[in-house]
Amino acid sequence: MSGTTAGKISSEEELIRTYLAPLARANEGAFGLRDDCAVYEPRPGSDLILTTDAIAAGVHFFADDRPEDIAWKALAVNVSDLAGKAAAPRVYQMALSFPEAPTHAFMERFASGLAEAQEAFGIVLSGGDCDRRPGPMTVTITAIGEVPAGLRLTRDGGQPGDAIFVTGTLGDAAFGLQLRRGDEAARAWPLSTHERAGLVARYLRPLPRLGLAPLLRRHATAAMDLSDGLAKDLGRLTRAASAGAMIVRGSLPLSEGVRRLVAADETLFDAVLSGGDDYEILFTAPPGSEPDVAAFAQAQGLMTTQIGTLVAGAGLMLTTADGERPLAAMGWDHF
Amino acid sequence: MSGTTAGKISSEEELIRTYLAPLARANEGAFGLRDDCAVYEPRPGSDLILTTDAIAAGVHFFADDRPEDIAWKALAVNVSDLAGKAAAPRVYQMALSFPEAPTHAFMERFASGLAEAQEAFGIVLSGGDCDRRPGPMTVTITAIGEVPAGLRLTRDGGQPGDAIFVTGTLGDAAFGLQLRRGDEAARAWPLSTHERAGLVARYLRPLPRLGLAPLLRRHATAAMDLSDGLAKDLGRLTRAASAGAMIVRGSLPLSEGVRRLVAADETLFDAVLSGGDDYEILFTAPPGSEPDVAAFAQAQGLMTTQIGTLVAGAGLMLTTADGERPLAAMGWDHF
Repeated sequence: MSGTTAGKISSEEELIRTYLAPLARANEGAFGLRDDCAVYEPRPGSDLILTTDAIAAGVHFFADDRPEDIAWKALAVNVSDLAGKAAAPRVYQMALSFPEAPTHAFMERFASGLAEAQEAFGIVLSGGDCDRRPGPMTVTITAIGEVPAGLRLTRDGGQPGDAIFVTGTLGDAAFGLQLRRGDEAARAWPLSTHERAGLVARYLRPLPRLGLAPLLRRHATAAMDLSDGLAKDLGRLTRAASAGAMIVRGSLPLSEGVRRLVAADETLFDAVLSGGDDYEILFTAPPGSEPDVAAFAQAQGLMTTQIGTLVAGAGLMLTTADGERPLAAMGWDHF
Repeated sequence: MSGTTAGKISSEEELIRTYLAPLARANEGAFGLRDDCAVYEPRPGSDLILTTDAIAAGVHFFADDRPEDIAWKALAVNVSDLAGKAAAPRVYQMALSFPEAPTHAFMERFASGLAEAQEAFGIVLSGGDCDRRPGPMTVTITAIGEVPAGLRLTRDGGQPGDAIFVTGTLGDAAFGLQLRRGDEAARAWPLSTHERAGLVARYLRPLPRLGLAPLLRRHATAAMDLSDGLAKDLGRLTRAASAGAMIVRGSLPLSEGVRRLVAADETLFDAVLSGGDDYEILFTAPPGSEPDVAAFAQAQGLMTTQIGTLVAGAGLMLTTADGERPLAAMGWDHF
């Protein structure tokens, strides 16, 4: 059956040559994936940003997700880290492991999802590793991006008084996950078919906020992407800055569907605060920079929203119509 | 039990802070592993070499191997790829996955093995990812090294007439694996306790041939590390060069123990040709360079041996006392 789309791939070499090498074609330093190392030429005047994230079937994605979506997500979650550092994506290394040899049909679709994501993010495959081993299918990517030499956009640069911003809308992916899972409760949610599909897409196909880089480079004092939920990730940012944060509940940017869900059932609001997989960017900027941030975002057609302020002290407070309450550091832990 | 060496690690954050962050201390760009990206400053005039290899329990190592050895091997197999490209190791990204939270005792020993390997290879941790997921414990590393800008030491640079060299001795790790596994046959091998331990150590603790870099940069037309067995890896090198190879059996460098084993049982010679995990370097150099190669190796205290010659045509031939025979491209395939 080898060579047909239904058959299984017969060797590591076939998998690399047929499905992965085309993804590295635009990268001279990848040597067509025929070598065991790649060469990367840094652009003069640049520092590199390195990040590594793995996704596994049954943990970070569903085993029956579309292969295109698995591939997209594996690359997107890494590129999102680069976006959070205002880095321009360049190349990635990918380690694939399968419990059994994948079919040609699977790999064709997986590779097409990667090709699409590469094109969208401006990144290209440089090398990697393929193995068969027990356990879930896993995609481990190390992505490399570039920033102007000396740019250090870390978590810890925020100062009390800085405005706290997020891109896009929060919680969509958390609700999308429940819809994708087919949760009983989710089936009753007052959402249109279109809204349901939109939320699921936010979960399956995160879109790294690469367009924000010029703004971050110019204004941000600290930045990171949101992958483990606002409460948890904001907790990390504030602890790194030895500061606290005051968040205004009414300012949290919600998509129309999520706004309706939360209005109908207040308990669902927790998913906005602690749901993972947002892949938006959380950043801080000095007081007074708000108009510049707003003007840049508008000019670029990007959505950014001030959700609160860094304050002296520690801990996260949420201001609601009923007053203030502490925001527990909920969210995803990998252990 | 948290905090005792017998207890299990309770969170990703604890694992990173307690055991991994110290490994990144010498790397300013790792930000104490408190950020989700690392910064890497390329040295001016350098190109980077990228390589990725994963090792998994039950596939590439034994689940009951010493944690120090697992860690060493995970890093060594990657650094060996860099050594095969004459690159100076710089930093690495590491993705760890565990089926259940590891104990403090395990991580302490695992981290000490990494620390030892970092010191030996001159490389430092820059970042990574930790997850719990079903399946075997897995260590996936992307290592980054540097070469002088423009240096391209690929597999495909060999020309007919070039001499073929290997470092060290071949097959030790293949026999070490059988000893480690406790194979019935291996127990009867005529080896001293010291020799047994030496072969097992070759399997458990590969030592990347980093000292060879100046020689490779100066003389090599093609180079790669030997991980999947001489026959298979030489097949790759010759196919990449569109050439064949003539190997002289009597010239293959064997340790004393392996020489004795093979003399006692001719069938064991296959392990020399096709056994994996040598982590020696296979390289070619132009005709006439043999004396320079020998002189350099001697001066550096390194062992290099000419094992044959690249020839026009295709395929691998082995010259023995009984004449010539084709060398089948045996060796390890990951599928």
